[in-house]
Amino acid sequence: MLLCGIFRSQAFPMPRSDTAFLFDLDGTLVDSVYQHVLAWKEALDREGVELSVWRIHRKIGMSGSLFTHILLRETGLEITEERLIRLRNWHAEAYNRQATQGSVRPLPGARELLAFLTEEEIPWAIATSGRMTTAAHNLEALGVDPSKVPVVTRDQVRHAKPDPDLFITAAQRLGVDIHQSLVVGDSIWDMLAAQRARALGIGLLSGGYGQKELEDAGAFRVYEDPADLLKHIDEVAARR
Amino acid sequence: MLLCGIFRSQAFPMPRSDTAFLFDLDGTLVDSVYQHVLAWKEALDREGVELSVWRIHRKIGMSGSLFTHILLRETGLEITEERLIRLRNWHAEAYNRQATQGSVRPLPGARELLAFLTEEEIPWAIATSGRMTTAAHNLEALGVDPSKVPVVTRDQVRHAKPDPDLFITAAQRLGVDIHQSLVVGDSIWDMLAAQRARALGIGLLSGGYGQKELEDAGAFRVYEDPADLLKHIDEVAARR
Repeated sequence: MLLCGIFRSQAFPMPRSDTAFLFDLDGTLVDSVYQHVLAWKEALDREGVELSVWRIHRKIGMSGSLFTHILLRETGLEITEERLIRLRNWHAEAYNRQATQGSVRPLPGARELLAFLTEEEIPWAIATSGRMTTAAHNLEALGVDPSKVPVVTRDQVRHAKPDPDLFITAAQRLGVDIHQSLVVGDSIWDMLAAQRARALGIGLLSGGYGQKELEDAGAFRVYEDPADLLKHIDEVAARR
Repeated sequence: MLLCGIFRSQAFPMPRSDTAFLFDLDGTLVDSVYQHVLAWKEALDREGVELSVWRIHRKIGMSGSLFTHILLRETGLEITEERLIRLRNWHAEAYNRQATQGSVRPLPGARELLAFLTEEEIPWAIATSGRMTTAAHNLEALGVDPSKVPVVTRDQVRHAKPDPDLFITAAQRLGVDIHQSLVVGDSIWDMLAAQRARALGIGLLSGGYGQKELEDAGAFRVYEDPADLLKHIDEVAARR
């Protein structure tokens, strides 16, 4: 048996692991989901679209354009380009009003987790369904300089989550194999995109989804927030 | 077998059912949870207490005093009467600012569900962990007149949820047996209080908890919102 084990490990040598971390932004590194939810609520109210707040919450994290398409279809309203642009602008206006008041902050352990990965030379990048207009405040709060760290926003890919393009592009920017990568996110859209990209999804509760919702969407492991992930990093990060 | 069935039903006649509905308010009948969450966030920020928004969300629905006690203990801050009063006032101020802007509305189907129960002469009451200062706006939005319908608020009982006092008092006001009553709520605190009162808990997703979280806290059934409960009312309401 031992011999057999040795033989097999020689016949199929494990490649050196190059695990990379691909992070969602809102609700994963920055405590901004609830502000986004109420900013969308304000935009929809202005447009005369009545939608319960929890339903907005459960759609946050997917592409904003897909999100508005889906809900306009669900509410039976006509989907026009003008309406979509108006909603997107009103959302950005409402969100940035809150963000500039300083209510949006990094989640506990987010800066420490990124610093740890950098220190350990484990590659990491950020991939968000948001546009740079709303992501800029969050990156600033997080102390991430997009000229130094790969940050893929919705403006840079054809399809946002739950399509896997954002995470695949982030892996390409890092020069790593998406199949060796971990996708860290707070929404089921991140977990679905991770599965579609054949990456492993790590769910965080810090966006307000329930643990079972994330597991049902394919999460490999679920932690409370970045601090909790950092505490258990050996469960998921490959040894160097 | 048929005879046996008849014999048994004669030997143990079922009493006439007097199912009553005891409703939580925020997140159950009124779409106000997310506004409460960010109002608490604002109050805590003013007090210099840093707490992730999802953690506030998961404590909403329990007694405000228990909530502030727990989080001050968790964050290691001294719990003084002045601090508790200050936090409560700041929360009420922030919440009422949003509520008076008209952002708080009844959940889909809430008015229809209450009208249906009234029409069918099924007793119902409201039991909320909130105080009348913040509940007043919500009752108004819902079209409920507290001089005509039993509304039990935190001011009127010794302990709020997850203690069962609010629901037990509501059943007493209706003159119904709590063991025949259904407790309808959106938070795990409602479901725990229901179990402690030996009532049956019905969970609604409209407060933003996940289905499994409510089931794990003892929900007998879970529906999306009041409209969905009304659609499936025959699953839970006793036939008259």
